[in-house]
Amino acid sequence: MVADRSAERREFGVDDIRRAADRIAPHVMETPVLTSRALDASCGARLFVKAESLQVTGSFKVRGALNKVLGYDGPTLRNGIIGYSAGNHAAAVAAAGRLVGCPAVVVVPTSAPRIKVDNCRAWDAEVVFYDPATEDRAEVAATIVAERGMTFIPPFDDHAIMAGAGTAGLELAQDLLTRGVRPDAVVVSCSGGGLASGVLVAMEHHFPGIEKYIVEPRGYDKMARSLAEGQVCSNPAVCTSVMDGIAGPVAGQRPLTVLAELGVTPLTVDDDQARLAVAGAYQHLKLVAEPAGAAALAAVLSRQDDFTDRDVALVCSGGNVDPAVYTAALDLAFPTPL
Amino acid sequence: MVADRSAERREFGVDDIRRAADRIAPHVMETPVLTSRALDASCGARLFVKAESLQVTGSFKVRGALNKVLGYDGPTLRNGIIGYSAGNHAAAVAAAGRLVGCPAVVVVPTSAPRIKVDNCRAWDAEVVFYDPATEDRAEVAATIVAERGMTFIPPFDDHAIMAGAGTAGLELAQDLLTRGVRPDAVVVSCSGGGLASGVLVAMEHHFPGIEKYIVEPRGYDKMARSLAEGQVCSNPAVCTSVMDGIAGPVAGQRPLTVLAELGVTPLTVDDDQARLAVAGAYQHLKLVAEPAGAAALAAVLSRQDDFTDRDVALVCSGGNVDPAVYTAALDLAFPTPL
Repeated sequence: MVADRSAERREFGVDDIRRAADRIAPHVMETPVLTSRALDASCGARLFVKAESLQVTGSFKVRGALNKVLGYDGPTLRNGIIGYSAGNHAAAVAAAGRLVGCPAVVVVPTSAPRIKVDNCRAWDAEVVFYDPATEDRAEVAATIVAERGMTFIPPFDDHAIMAGAGTAGLELAQDLLTRGVRPDAVVVSCSGGGLASGVLVAMEHHFPGIEKYIVEPRGYDKMARSLAEGQVCSNPAVCTSVMDGIAGPVAGQRPLTVLAELGVTPLTVDDDQARLAVAGAYQHLKLVAEPAGAAALAAVLSRQDDFTDRDVALVCSGGNVDPAVYTAALDLAFPTPL
Repeated sequence: MVADRSAERREFGVDDIRRAADRIAPHVMETPVLTSRALDASCGARLFVKAESLQVTGSFKVRGALNKVLGYDGPTLRNGIIGYSAGNHAAAVAAAGRLVGCPAVVVVPTSAPRIKVDNCRAWDAEVVFYDPATEDRAEVAATIVAERGMTFIPPFDDHAIMAGAGTAGLELAQDLLTRGVRPDAVVVSCSGGGLASGVLVAMEHHFPGIEKYIVEPRGYDKMARSLAEGQVCSNPAVCTSVMDGIAGPVAGQRPLTVLAELGVTPLTVDDDQARLAVAGAYQHLKLVAEPAGAAALAAVLSRQDDFTDRDVALVCSGGNVDPAVYTAALDLAFPTPL
């Protein structure tokens, strides 16, 4: 037990992220960092938006899943891989399975957006639904692991997943260095914490002392509470937030440890703020963002005083959004025909 | 006159495009080339989409305007620059003026989408409206040129503009070479012909013999008729197509000459085909495309038999679309909530 605990507390650092970048490079896209004069004018800051919604599978999640899967040998993967998520990690597991050539099962809540379920099927994964009000997704997955001998790909509480997600932050830092920009702040959405911990480690490494913000949906701020209480906290089991992608039930222990050490400032945004950011990404960046994917942008746009005249790096983490949700966001932002 | 005609018939080639690329590089974005497994599955081809909707000003047009403006000396630009267009070239002129530090006037039809007018104002340009049913935009611009001593930036019938637009094709070719892909076909939207001529020259240079397609709106196929008749033809003066960006009144003589020499195949798409392609770019590429910007994708999606099992390179040329037009496209593609 003592040895196990020591392994758990192994340092997580930028070298893990660099190794992940080398490993996954052949399979993922180096997404662009977008800027907009009009968007900057609308908020009084200079924004640099890492467009992970353009990533394979439409979100950053494939980076972590691939890094995890590529760390296994062939025999381990023989019976396939399995993952659970509200959608984007599920598609990432599906894509990782297809890319390495093994079967994939994804465990998805019945409440998941259809576009995310279709996204899993496009990569030939088997989709297993569970009812988030009455079932525990970890138990559903564990049962399938036991029955079929599949390998479980965790969604966030894992150093390989965090390192894979962090490669987005490494690319963002390198892009900013190429531009000669030294950002004042970095803002990233947070659910389990895989993306936030990975990206913020990479950004802190390249820009020591940078202000580091994590963004959660109002009412689903499990990581903020986890940081305050020093232990992993939970969200309500059933998500009614439009930011389904970052309202998962529980924060990750390993991401929590990293974020606590880094010293991050937690922010929250409400559904309408997320919708307005979706519309801002549409109008100014020509980027389809899901509400959770636009949460970091929403935090900047809705707290303009905090970011005035600053150079702000942020991640648009995903773009898998059902059309009805998307058009509702545009309707909110443009109530009369623009 | 003989000397003038000889100058007019000067060869236009890939070297013009290479020089333009070097000249404009500090000011424009090297846009990504996007792929989607699900999009490929939906049409039976492998698509490589150059995402010029992510370009500064939301369309490829800034490439040509910048290349033209950067060819002038300071005194010539002292009184500023002026251009006319349905919107995207206007924003490009506005941006070019701001980037080189001179005033800019843009002459825009009263029918232009508001998002395109706002886009000009975001770059501090003075917007002058004209009524396309009763006024000639060239005359409106000529009057302002005479009164104010401004320098006219042509929209497409100019080798510097064509070369600037062609840099998108150069980047597309280089991206495909890096991937080890030798495309069977390249498909690009066409109005005056600046983009089509530039991109197809660059692609033919790198992939000799590649099949070259240009795409126009049904009922506004002035370049197809120009190619058939061997002389510049016009469109109806008032545009009712949803593809406003490629339904301009007249084809360009220089682009026509280049396209005729290259040997291109003209295609047309109707408004609903363009709307479905807008929705396809939303769903599978996470890219906001305007209907004209999605015309090349529309041609591939609506003529799947012609492209089955082929590697097809195409350009998504712009993303400046009013929300009402955009949501109508999503409603057409996803009539019941997805």
